[in-house]
Amino acid sequence: MTWASIDLNADLGEGFGRWTLTDDEELLSVVTSANVACGFHAGDAVTMRRVCERAAAGGVRIGAQVSYRDLAGFGRRSMDVPADELAAEVAYQIGALEVFARAAGSRVSYVKPHGALYNRVVRDEEQARAVVDGILLGSGGEGLPVLGLPGSRLHEAAAEAGLPVVTEAFGDRAYTADGSLLPRGQEGAVVTDPAEVVERSLSVARFGVVTSHCGRTVAVRARSLCLHGDTPGAVDLARRVRGQLEAAGVRVEAFA
Amino acid sequence: MTWASIDLNADLGEGFGRWTLTDDEELLSVVTSANVACGFHAGDAVTMRRVCERAAAGGVRIGAQVSYRDLAGFGRRSMDVPADELAAEVAYQIGALEVFARAAGSRVSYVKPHGALYNRVVRDEEQARAVVDGILLGSGGEGLPVLGLPGSRLHEAAAEAGLPVVTEAFGDRAYTADGSLLPRGQEGAVVTDPAEVVERSLSVARFGVVTSHCGRTVAVRARSLCLHGDTPGAVDLARRVRGQLEAAGVRVEAFA
Amino acid sequence: MTWASIDLNADLGEGFGRWTLTDDEELLSVVTSANVACGFHAGDAVTMRRVCERAAAGGVRIGAQVSYRDLAGFGRRSMDVPADELAAEVAYQIGALEVFARAAGSRVSYVKPHGALYNRVVRDEEQARAVVDGILLGSGGEGLPVLGLPGSRLHEAAAEAGLPVVTEAFGDRAYTADGSLLPRGQEGAVVTDPAEVVERSLSVARFGVVTSHCGRTVAVRARSLCLHGDTPGAVDLARRVRGQLEAAGVRVEAFA
Amino acid sequence: MTWASIDLNADLGEGFGRWTLTDDEELLSVVTSANVACGFHAGDAVTMRRVCERAAAGGVRIGAQVSYRDLAGFGRRSMDVPADELAAEVAYQIGALEVFARAAGSRVSYVKPHGALYNRVVRDEEQARAVVDGILLGSGGEGLPVLGLPGSRLHEAAAEAGLPVVTEAFGDRAYTADGSLLPRGQEGAVVTDPAEVVERSLSVARFGVVTSHCGRTVAVRARSLCLHGDTPGAVDLARRVRGQLEAAGVRVEAFA
Repeated sequence: MTWASIDLNADLGEGFGRWTLTDDEELLSVVTSANVACGFHAGDAVTMRRVCERAAAGGVRIGAQVSYRDLAGFGRRSMDVPADELAAEVAYQIGALEVFARAAGSRVSYVKPHGALYNRVVRDEEQARAVVDGILLGSGGEGLPVLGLPGSRLHEAAAEAGLPVVTEAFGDRAYTADGSLLPRGQEGAVVTDPAEVVERSLSVARFGVVTSHCGRTVAVRARSLCLHGDTPGAVDLARRVRGQLEAAGVRVEAFA
Repeated sequence: MTWASIDLNADLGEGFGRWTLTDDEELLSVVTSANVACGFHAGDAVTMRRVCERAAAGGVRIGAQVSYRDLAGFGRRSMDVPADELAAEVAYQIGALEVFARAAGSRVSYVKPHGALYNRVVRDEEQARAVVDGILLGSGGEGLPVLGLPGSRLHEAAAEAGLPVVTEAFGDRAYTADGSLLPRGQEGAVVTDPAEVVERSLSVARFGVVTSHCGRTVAVRARSLCLHGDTPGAVDLARRVRGQLEAAGVRVEAFA
Repeated sequence: MTWASIDLNADLGEGFGRWTLTDDEELLSVVTSANVACGFHAGDAVTMRRVCERAAAGGVRIGAQVSYRDLAGFGRRSMDVPADELAAEVAYQIGALEVFARAAGSRVSYVKPHGALYNRVVRDEEQARAVVDGILLGSGGEGLPVLGLPGSRLHEAAAEAGLPVVTEAFGDRAYTADGSLLPRGQEGAVVTDPAEVVERSLSVARFGVVTSHCGRTVAVRARSLCLHGDTPGAVDLARRVRGQLEAAGVRVEAFA
Repeated sequence: MTWASIDLNADLGEGFGRWTLTDDEELLSVVTSANVACGFHAGDAVTMRRVCERAAAGGVRIGAQVSYRDLAGFGRRSMDVPADELAAEVAYQIGALEVFARAAGSRVSYVKPHGALYNRVVRDEEQARAVVDGILLGSGGEGLPVLGLPGSRLHEAAAEAGLPVVTEAFGDRAYTADGSLLPRGQEGAVVTDPAEVVERSLSVARFGVVTSHCGRTVAVRARSLCLHGDTPGAVDLARRVRGQLEAAGVRVEAFA
């Protein structure tokens, strides 16, 4: 069975003041969903505004890439943030981004946790619930779709709260036999060969499967593919993935 | 001539994490408008949420107390922030607060700059315009009333942009003969005698005049009186001011 | 057996900019060792300078109260900081404080981790070693005494590196039967009755024992007692503890 | 008259956490003095440590590049910081860097203000004195050489306090007829043609003169040339300047 379509998402606006990281212009010409940094791990107000304007102009969906409050660590250090603080901080970030999305004629239309928070809410139920509370709080109770790993505590908590969940996969990450990501520390966790990344991306998008680290074919349900844009050659690779998907007849479009 | 009514505003939520400053609970029982710190000079997400909830529950109007990004200096150090950055940062703060105001069943319904930014936009046209741009950006183009000093560049810029302006006066600050505030550095700039603060507040609210530093009666047009809550005895004084206003037949209510 | 003497330590300088927390003046008249916040969880440069000057003038020993970089969370949120970052950040804090200690005619003469870092290095060997590396780095390789819990990984790592360890106890915390602290979440973890705090402090200082949560007499080896100064009545209690210790013939003096 | 020798300085370590800016490795192979960011406008502890290690290993002198506390603005926004705060913050930064310089077997051996602070202390006497106070405070009263513009208030205040002053010039900046820098806003303020930058650098180093914006030959006394490393091609240009200086017989070495 093939998916009718696939969404491509990437982290954007991850500079801060004088510093830049992601090639926002180029990535916005490739992706269909932009995970915009909201100022807690990266992202200043000027950048948030500009990324929202470009995303809206290019028809790219805007999502809030919410994070722990940790500029020095780029949100990559797991933190024991109490649930009420985490919920309020998630809402704060959504609200700040919403201003720029609206001013650009768009809306914040989904949420994706960043870095250490993303990894933590795969298993940490308390923080997963706090993120969901924050999303409800930050969206006026309406809720927003939550982009994340299938089977994560975050998706469970979101589903319980009635929020739509959007599953994502990674063309450049190795999977275990049970369909979870091979942890970054382990050998082979990151796929670096561009041809292989393209091939794996196609496999996920077309057939919903990927070859695991130990050689098995495993199911990877994903409505969105995550592309990376913060390394040399990343944008070219992202473009290539999109090109090959389209050549194979996969419709590249934002999730509904 | 007497005003039909007067608004009482105070800075609230000016703690940060472990630190507290303003007695939010008590002040919310006195004022009709709450200038809520938005995280740039003070104010964390949990505090913003709580203050909005209490304000909404008590029928107190919520305003965004926007500031330079300066936690270490509590927003009291004038900064040469470029116009585009300042506008975007003002919008960011409004958006973050709006989330908590809405969640509490209310809205951000005005904006008041804090500290050094407040003082700077009295004369600095570029920053005044940037603040107004930020308010437009942060309110989806609709605009919000701007609380500030009569005759300030901020109020001029706001009026030009079609935003309502709300003038305020200070019962505890000395005025010059031309109706402007005596600068803080100068002797007698701050009125410390409680009875005098009450008397001056009444004079402004009832007759629109105050006795200047040099003994003249000067007109001070003010739709709102600013009360302070960050010093010992401040809350008692605020309560006394409100009590005397009401006793004198002045209607204490949020500006329309 | 009684100790010849006991050191009294307290956290100081834990304000930030406009915010204050600890009553530094008063506490400096009670303690013999001042754990000075270095800017990462609290403490600005002006405060650090002033506390060092007062401490030096009063003959109080100056220690670096090092922390995770977390102003918003007051250093109370455990963070997965990589070892090289943690070591460098510990050294950075020591170096910054050393400037003010020296300018006041004193020196940084010990190190005590703060909050979540303090708790984490009780068991986390990697972070414990990183703190020790940071102390060595921050003291020009000479090392500094490390104030902490007896039996902690921090003390083990310090001892391995040849650093002196100074054990501390808490008159206002409950102990388990094995001599460790009852975790804060649990009922009765914090002793609030002043008379009991005084009695327990005396017991530790004079006899090296304390009555555990379940009623047993357990040995608590402590060269220093930690006093708290951030709650109402705390300074009075600290003063009382010191008075009773002296009345009982215990010499109150900084550890050698 | 020609200078016997010239010092080459550049700003280094101006990344923060995940973000990098300056090509520290390459620049350290060109310059003789490294202005190391100390964490207030840029620079984290890990980067400070690494830059100090590399600088010490390569025989490059280490200086403290002190700044306003402004990560979001990269220290480029002039701030009205009270004198006592500024002095203490300068000392704090020097102390933090000293730890890493010493650990690498070197010392902080000069101070250069960064960005908006650099520009402000050209004319602002109060802040100039505060920086000098901070240098004295941060160096245990011994003082350190101060790198800056000839004729600046900073150099006057430093000289009054008995601190050595080291003058610097810019090969890539236009000068007015009176030997001061043409303000950045004005047309032609920055010289972009590499050949011209090299020629002007040589002229300053060999003859102590430069051609002003309006075509006059003006004296520019400079013991050090400032090179930039944060733009594409900057390192190549820096290398070329050094090569041409050496080819012309100018000794490139750190100031005494």
